[in-house]
Amino acid sequence: MGVWCFKHQLPRFGLYPTLGEGFTPVLEVVVEGRRVALKLENLNPTGSFKDRGTPVAIASALKSGYKILCEDSSGNAGISTSCYARAYGLEPVIAVPKGISRGKLDVLSLCGAKILFGENREDARRRAVELWRSGSVLYIPHTHMPHHVEGMKTLAYEIFYQLSDMPTHVFVPTSSGSGLLGLYLGFKELKEWGYIDRIPKLIAVQSAHVFPLYRALKNRDPPIVESESLADGLALKSPPRLELMLKAIVDSKGDVVTVTNNMIRKHLKLLALRGILVEPTSAAGLAGFEAYVSASGEEPGSPLVVVTGSGLKLASTILELMP
Amino acid sequence: MGVWCFKHQLPRFGLYPTLGEGFTPVLEVVVEGRRVALKLENLNPTGSFKDRGTPVAIASALKSGYKILCEDSSGNAGISTSCYARAYGLEPVIAVPKGISRGKLDVLSLCGAKILFGENREDARRRAVELWRSGSVLYIPHTHMPHHVEGMKTLAYEIFYQLSDMPTHVFVPTSSGSGLLGLYLGFKELKEWGYIDRIPKLIAVQSAHVFPLYRALKNRDPPIVESESLADGLALKSPPRLELMLKAIVDSKGDVVTVTNNMIRKHLKLLALRGILVEPTSAAGLAGFEAYVSASGEEPGSPLVVVTGSGLKLASTILELMP
Repeated sequence: MGVWCFKHQLPRFGLYPTLGEGFTPVLEVVVEGRRVALKLENLNPTGSFKDRGTPVAIASALKSGYKILCEDSSGNAGISTSCYARAYGLEPVIAVPKGISRGKLDVLSLCGAKILFGENREDARRRAVELWRSGSVLYIPHTHMPHHVEGMKTLAYEIFYQLSDMPTHVFVPTSSGSGLLGLYLGFKELKEWGYIDRIPKLIAVQSAHVFPLYRALKNRDPPIVESESLADGLALKSPPRLELMLKAIVDSKGDVVTVTNNMIRKHLKLLALRGILVEPTSAAGLAGFEAYVSASGEEPGSPLVVVTGSGLKLASTILELMP
Repeated sequence: MGVWCFKHQLPRFGLYPTLGEGFTPVLEVVVEGRRVALKLENLNPTGSFKDRGTPVAIASALKSGYKILCEDSSGNAGISTSCYARAYGLEPVIAVPKGISRGKLDVLSLCGAKILFGENREDARRRAVELWRSGSVLYIPHTHMPHHVEGMKTLAYEIFYQLSDMPTHVFVPTSSGSGLLGLYLGFKELKEWGYIDRIPKLIAVQSAHVFPLYRALKNRDPPIVESESLADGLALKSPPRLELMLKAIVDSKGDVVTVTNNMIRKHLKLLALRGILVEPTSAAGLAGFEAYVSASGEEPGSPLVVVTGSGLKLASTILELMP
């Protein structure tokens, strides 16, 4: 069940923890005259695409016998880790930046996670690492752990399985890179096995506030730089796997785009008024599609946007943001 | 796509509106030593099982050419109607009781529904009917409309499709009865077609505050009556289809149970601490399983609980309720 339907391609722990993740729908919509497929990862059990990586990480924790897990997160990965930990009798400790949205904090509290607050996203990571070094706590960072990426690659398998024609471009909001790297790994395997001729162009979407991958690829800052971003999930300034992420972009002939707060607001509203309730970070993904067309002058033949997280967690916050 | 995968058994409008509903996972859990299957309807696009009925109702609206829809709802049906209406360019007007939870109201606002407030659930209905009578607005009440039930029957199809052994008992929180009647209709069809030998016992779960079906079946009030209920989705005091609901219960050799606020709180926490984030009305469904075992002395061989709605919509409200 869940990602373990693909267990022959996942790390072998002999344990299959699940909350029913994966097998999310692909919805075709027309946005400002352009047809685009949305992979609705917001419909995962805890409301985000992290639910693909977490079960694999939790399986490793169960196998190792640890009883307490720690993770650092801007929100979604922490919620996912907490829920899966709880489901299997483990205690979650989640380090978050103190600016975490109220809605995500409430959900974290709901499943009884112990919460540590860092000054910012980087400080949250330091706190989680500190706890880990104190011993007896297993650190399962989605920002580093290959298991997360292994689980995340099922996203590529499903896209291949669900669509009659492979997308030419896949847009994914990118912070730690687990989504981007999972897609790359999954598509690479499908290519090696001869199922697809080429990997879709992977287009990472970052904010106009935090854009390490953009800078690494282009060796410059984006045209517009902002002092903060509504995309609270795109907060990691120094992603540990930056080199791997670059390779995924270059190898797939992809790109990195950045999106401003105005673009996020616009697409948040556009999606909500089509009945699709996503979080700002996911609206950034769709905004990235527009940014890409505008920057590259290229009209993607069949684009797909990964809708990473649910808007149901933070409806009141989103209401305040809507233009 | 969505419920229209079963279009050969649905009303024929030649139109297939969808947001990717249905095909929700069944998760097996052990609750206080008892194995129970949970059908995770909370993972539908707008966070509730209403997303099965709404596309069929919206198809009828699209066919008829109306541009404005109205519906009355304690929350979930209104959210579902609003999102599907928006997805297809229709204007939703939703009448709700003024006591609607903040989280559900925020989500309704998010997709731009026009909201009318009634004094209570019954008054909300009166307001929707009034608007309908004024003309030019199509009323698509899930409380009456056979189309909703037609969509909802896909729940029974999926349960049959997903489980190797049919459940002996299906527990469903019941207010207007669209879930109960949908299950009954779907299972009845499966029986007529010779796929199953008998309809699972349908156990309707109501609150200790509002229990019209309990009273109608047993001709008495439940042992404990409360002056209010945490199950905000179980608010309808005079469901229009009471006779049909009774027939579904009697014909399936089912039952009606009521659950107190303490039982709801207990199961809300129990589920949250297993990483399953549901709303109070859905916790009532699982509480109903315990109530049934306790009242009937019968241990269901393979029980299934329909988890009707997501907890992500109202995490802060739930946090306040947790024991």
